[in-house]
Amino acid sequence: MRDIRVALWGLGAMGSGIAKMIASKEGLALSGVCVRRDHLVGQEVYAYLGIDRGDRDPVFITNKIEDIVRRDLCDIVVLATDSFVETQFDKIMFCLERGVHVLSIAEEMAWPWAQNEELADKIDALAKMRGVSVLGTGINPGFVLDYLILALSGTCEHVESISAARVNDLAPFGKSVMVEQGVGISIDEFKRRMEEGSLSGHVGFPESMSMIAEGMGVALADIEETRDPIISNVDRKSAHGEAKKGNLAGIRQQSYGRLANGKVFIHLDHPQQICPEDEGVNTGDYVTIRADGYDMNLSIVPETPGGIGTIAMAVNMIPHVIGAKPGLRSMLDLPVPRCILGNYAEQIHQERDHRYRRGELVSVETVILPVGERAPQVPDDTKRTPLRAFTKGFLQEESATRGDLVTVRTMSDRLVTGTVSDLPISPTHTFGHSVPELTAVHRQVFELMFGGESK
Amino acid sequence: MRDIRVALWGLGAMGSGIAKMIASKEGLALSGVCVRRDHLVGQEVYAYLGIDRGDRDPVFITNKIEDIVRRDLCDIVVLATDSFVETQFDKIMFCLERGVHVLSIAEEMAWPWAQNEELADKIDALAKMRGVSVLGTGINPGFVLDYLILALSGTCEHVESISAARVNDLAPFGKSVMVEQGVGISIDEFKRRMEEGSLSGHVGFPESMSMIAEGMGVALADIEETRDPIISNVDRKSAHGEAKKGNLAGIRQQSYGRLANGKVFIHLDHPQQICPEDEGVNTGDYVTIRADGYDMNLSIVPETPGGIGTIAMAVNMIPHVIGAKPGLRSMLDLPVPRCILGNYAEQIHQERDHRYRRGELVSVETVILPVGERAPQVPDDTKRTPLRAFTKGFLQEESATRGDLVTVRTMSDRLVTGTVSDLPISPTHTFGHSVPELTAVHRQVFELMFGGESK
Repeated sequence: MRDIRVALWGLGAMGSGIAKMIASKEGLALSGVCVRRDHLVGQEVYAYLGIDRGDRDPVFITNKIEDIVRRDLCDIVVLATDSFVETQFDKIMFCLERGVHVLSIAEEMAWPWAQNEELADKIDALAKMRGVSVLGTGINPGFVLDYLILALSGTCEHVESISAARVNDLAPFGKSVMVEQGVGISIDEFKRRMEEGSLSGHVGFPESMSMIAEGMGVALADIEETRDPIISNVDRKSAHGEAKKGNLAGIRQQSYGRLANGKVFIHLDHPQQICPEDEGVNTGDYVTIRADGYDMNLSIVPETPGGIGTIAMAVNMIPHVIGAKPGLRSMLDLPVPRCILGNYAEQIHQERDHRYRRGELVSVETVILPVGERAPQVPDDTKRTPLRAFTKGFLQEESATRGDLVTVRTMSDRLVTGTVSDLPISPTHTFGHSVPELTAVHRQVFELMFGGESK
Repeated sequence: MRDIRVALWGLGAMGSGIAKMIASKEGLALSGVCVRRDHLVGQEVYAYLGIDRGDRDPVFITNKIEDIVRRDLCDIVVLATDSFVETQFDKIMFCLERGVHVLSIAEEMAWPWAQNEELADKIDALAKMRGVSVLGTGINPGFVLDYLILALSGTCEHVESISAARVNDLAPFGKSVMVEQGVGISIDEFKRRMEEGSLSGHVGFPESMSMIAEGMGVALADIEETRDPIISNVDRKSAHGEAKKGNLAGIRQQSYGRLANGKVFIHLDHPQQICPEDEGVNTGDYVTIRADGYDMNLSIVPETPGGIGTIAMAVNMIPHVIGAKPGLRSMLDLPVPRCILGNYAEQIHQERDHRYRRGELVSVETVILPVGERAPQVPDDTKRTPLRAFTKGFLQEESATRGDLVTVRTMSDRLVTGTVSDLPISPTHTFGHSVPELTAVHRQVFELMFGGESK
């Protein structure tokens, strides 16, 4: 089975982690890396990441995306470049135009219909036309405050309300995160920076809310989002941040999804601060579902790690994106994410191979002319392909699955030996997909030749 | 949108719960109920369950399964009858023969390949031939000790080992469970009854183990299962059970999935006893995944309720079974289970409706002859169907989705008004599926007419 060839667009903290994870896995091959920063261009990526390249081909970092996103070079592109659908839209469309699958860790792509319905529709239409799939995923949105809640709710008959929190610690992060998240600033400074919009925060509440609502068939009338200062009652200090008593240890971001009657159906809570344990707060992921008159309380303590979690979700979903129906997909309709320890390529065939029994009609493949024995006058790409024949017949062996070497007896009584193929026994015929461009050409030709009003 | 018609086979504790849940949901209709116990036959099921029937048609309990499992009467059969694949096999095949989808809560059906590969293959082959799907699910196996573990592992790069426990309390159960589970017996009695095989226990460890291993692409060399007495250190007493100090409070069932090197990769633990809190043990579902050098600790306290959980999983998965690819499916390849609060039938269309834009080629449906205006000489079933026409043309409205009333301009410049259909623009032709029976008939006819050796 051929490895899945993955091109990577973006080589920041997430992109580098994804590259390292791909390099550590069976059945995945890094086929190209594209960055924006010029100083990386030309470097060999395994050397840059400090990974032993082994017997793999070297991969040189480029800033020319058109050199690596090509159907003959890669199967899927992992986009680790943006947080927003709008800023990533052109990149996604570029990849789809070139007929490759797309997996994005942009937060808004986890449920792009939430705030970018028109762009989502365009992505969906192009993906379907090119016969490829698109998925947005990550640890959050993508898992903790949406997928995990949905999965847990599956064990409930009737859910009355949902409340979930992701409590994490910013202490491990660097100086820039401290500044962006307002660690250590005063309440007045917080108010000023809220007004000027210079505080960053979690992206993805509307996406998580909408995914939950859509999955459960609930109509949310309103999604509210709030940000409040977390004022420290003690002096807190981390490697790169410091919050004196009375100043901000961080910011608490919350979201309320309300039903038409005004009742809060979903409450999501995401306080981000340094050293929460200094005030007795345990980091963790917490979900409470009120259902059928009882509460379900799920906790993951400490919280699922953010960086590793997003990297792992992205890489672990690769085979499921490739195996999905063409179009813009979501975590709602793909198979359960799981850590794959075996061959990733084998996980694409969700279908367990059918075991044919003696006497069953199967299709076997035989190679008439292998590569190297093709006629000299055929084109080069034909030369690189064996000439194969497919024959239907009744299996002579006790049992067999795809790939087994078997003998079949055809309807005209010939005995043919070949490998069991997965070609369907019953043929299907099409004239290909409708091509809108050809319709336009048809009209133009019609106009030129016969005149008349444009339709 | 039409309701999903659900036939129910089995009306014990689980079956009754499933019937009640179906009755409480939008988009689901109970189409028939079949039981083994004669004294229920003929009773009206809503009255029997103590549910207000409202304006629904009465459903009379039958013991003739052939009267309710018919493609014109139901879309899916929920089987709440057995724990084992072998004992349920004929029932499943009966339903598939009749072309309806099947959802089973038999524990072994959660991963039927684990211990019944040949039967599973037969189920898969027949389901594919009839174009319907089969799923086994429940709270455990089906969720707690397999699906939940897999989903959590999706956030990990590399998993080293998995350890999970489901700790529950038998106190709410009746006398028969106390006897079956050995509550209150002595250690000698436990040994004797283990030998005679008269202690019941959890069914599903091999299934959970195999589902996890398959999902993660891990080969387990060996799956061991153990049963040990839980000897009480205090006197415990529940409504129907009593365990004196020194006797059994219950039984601890464990399973170890080992790799080829002998290392335990998965450890599942399921102690079942009365009043565990008497010795400070909290009931709950606990998962620890050792990954990338850290532990992930998930807990659900108290444990997900067993009865409600199985009922809810079964009903909540109904739309996903109907929407699945034909064949024997598992929780590994279906969409995430979630509590559906809206219309169940709407959840079958995982596909979000495409939004067509002005000028796009769409297919619209118009009714030529509605029901009631069909010609008098046509057969009865034809009379019950409107005569419809499908027309392709360019959308005149700004935008539209399936079901909208729109006007299109055809290639020959006609203006046609109709509702947007989901008929594909590009036609596909087949000669139907291969029918093995016809191949056999072909041979027989050939033999009779021309003689010769049988192939």
